[in-house]
Amino acid sequence: MVEQITVLGAGSWGTALAIVLADNGHNVKLWGHRPQLINEINETRKNEKYLPGVVLPEKIEGFSDLKQSLAGARTVVLAVPTKAIRGVLSDISKVINDAIIIVHVSKGIEPDSLLRISEIIEEEMPSQLLKDVVVLSGPSHAEEVSQRHITTVTSSSKNMAAAEYIQDLFINQHFRVYTNPDIIGVEIGGALKNIIALAAGITDGLGYGDNAKAALITRGLAEIARLGSKMGGNPLTFSGLTGIGDLIVTCTSVHSRNWRAGNLLGKGQKLEEVLENMGMVVEGVRTTKAAYQLARKYNVKMPITEALYDVLFNEKEPKIAVDSLMARVKTHEMEDLVNIMENR
Amino acid sequence: MVEQITVLGAGSWGTALAIVLADNGHNVKLWGHRPQLINEINETRKNEKYLPGVVLPEKIEGFSDLKQSLAGARTVVLAVPTKAIRGVLSDISKVINDAIIIVHVSKGIEPDSLLRISEIIEEEMPSQLLKDVVVLSGPSHAEEVSQRHITTVTSSSKNMAAAEYIQDLFINQHFRVYTNPDIIGVEIGGALKNIIALAAGITDGLGYGDNAKAALITRGLAEIARLGSKMGGNPLTFSGLTGIGDLIVTCTSVHSRNWRAGNLLGKGQKLEEVLENMGMVVEGVRTTKAAYQLARKYNVKMPITEALYDVLFNEKEPKIAVDSLMARVKTHEMEDLVNIMENR
Repeated sequence: MVEQITVLGAGSWGTALAIVLADNGHNVKLWGHRPQLINEINETRKNEKYLPGVVLPEKIEGFSDLKQSLAGARTVVLAVPTKAIRGVLSDISKVINDAIIIVHVSKGIEPDSLLRISEIIEEEMPSQLLKDVVVLSGPSHAEEVSQRHITTVTSSSKNMAAAEYIQDLFINQHFRVYTNPDIIGVEIGGALKNIIALAAGITDGLGYGDNAKAALITRGLAEIARLGSKMGGNPLTFSGLTGIGDLIVTCTSVHSRNWRAGNLLGKGQKLEEVLENMGMVVEGVRTTKAAYQLARKYNVKMPITEALYDVLFNEKEPKIAVDSLMARVKTHEMEDLVNIMENR
Repeated sequence: MVEQITVLGAGSWGTALAIVLADNGHNVKLWGHRPQLINEINETRKNEKYLPGVVLPEKIEGFSDLKQSLAGARTVVLAVPTKAIRGVLSDISKVINDAIIIVHVSKGIEPDSLLRISEIIEEEMPSQLLKDVVVLSGPSHAEEVSQRHITTVTSSSKNMAAAEYIQDLFINQHFRVYTNPDIIGVEIGGALKNIIALAAGITDGLGYGDNAKAALITRGLAEIARLGSKMGGNPLTFSGLTGIGDLIVTCTSVHSRNWRAGNLLGKGQKLEEVLENMGMVVEGVRTTKAAYQLARKYNVKMPITEALYDVLFNEKEPKIAVDSLMARVKTHEMEDLVNIMENR
């Protein structure tokens, strides 16, 4: 069935998801807050800054007015940086009258409140305007999705009927959507992998090689799973697409912003320089702060997160942080791993 | 304490491990069956074919005579291709008198017999000549180890005292050795990752991108863990260095032979051409056959292994095999994952 769907956020991921939905025959209203970008989308069928070279299907219509973009929408895809989410949600509630399903595709945890994105949505939206919250997450660089390369993602919700409805909207021959009822695990895995990607970028920037990076990713997964299962996630989720799958793609692909930011840090740039040079949001920086706080709250050992926190916020030298991570006194591999499963 | 250790096999991995041992002050006898290569090692301190540009420490002495290389050895590192192992073991037993510890570092499973390497060693060696069998495995490209890049590996044995003894011989500031009592899981993870690396090379050769590769690796890990836990391995081992760690490095690093072989297959070369062009052993080809047989024996679903088997041995088009893998009708991610943990 053809639906009308609003995608909020005309960055690379929002635009790529709009393409998937348009490919499936749906009418897509794509909202972005910069009128110039929206004009470019409507007039040239391109979004050169975020998806260079890609031609947008006719079924995508750009809007810079939020109210217009939401008119008649039952399903809203929220693809804005985590920092902007509360503001956008508050704006949405002022301009809609009927309850909507919100599909969020941002990866992060809010510092201080320590809320996952779905929890922020539930907190911010009046309950009579919120039908369901679904998260769509997985190893999915926007550039490849926009080029119709095979991609697999997970749809998750407290209400599995909603997760399946979203699966049906998005699934096609190259965009494969699976469901998983564990929304906590899906959100935690998606958010925390950005921390490990920053750290992997740093080891690459320092010139440490693939062996060291593989060790870092392995331990990073253990660290994510330790925290995530203590927060109520299913340990198995961290072995799936939104866990190890997303972690691999973010740590090893040249497309990854968080890896690129870490790489520049490893090469000696300061955090401010890096963020300025990137010109895009690097979610992992904010998530590192939140995960550092979560590790203390749940009393979970997260050595990579702690080392990265010191590099980002306490001016610790990247090389010293990485070397002390690798030299940790620990001789039995299982110590790390057994903890993951304690809470099953 | 300074020990005398014999390393059998002067390929890239045997030579890299000889360097680690020599760096730790041990006297290393390095055996290879080609006198020309051994002469090069002794006369130029180089092994240009396998480790270009690396200067070998003086503590490494090359031998092309097996008996001479084994004189006085209590610890023997077995670094020969899996296909050569039975022959070398039989030769060893003819020339030694005292029991030795064998450290094997090859990754494979024998087709037809379906034995792991440690089982082959126990079968082939007279028990009075075999003190212990230890496996050393993990994400460790030889090139990087020979350049003293940080590397982490796992030492495993039925006899943990032996695993710890080997840990002590090898460990240093950049070569970090951990122990794990699960020798079945360690050997299965090390062997089967080569299958997934071949498959990942194929998808890369076909131009499918990082999203597809991440999905393949994620499912590959699930497939390895399903079989490995059914064979008696600890499911946690597959989340560790010899599981996901080794899988990542083999699937994403340019150093990986199995990935390179798969890449050429994906680009349209025939298996015979690929093997000829590589000029080195591609363990994954043989392991695919063994794993295909194991999947049938243990009644475990291994879709990637089965697809690769058809490509390698039944002339199936790589693109058709990959596309049918990705289009599999399965909507709940957990189906794949829950099976892994069934046998815990």
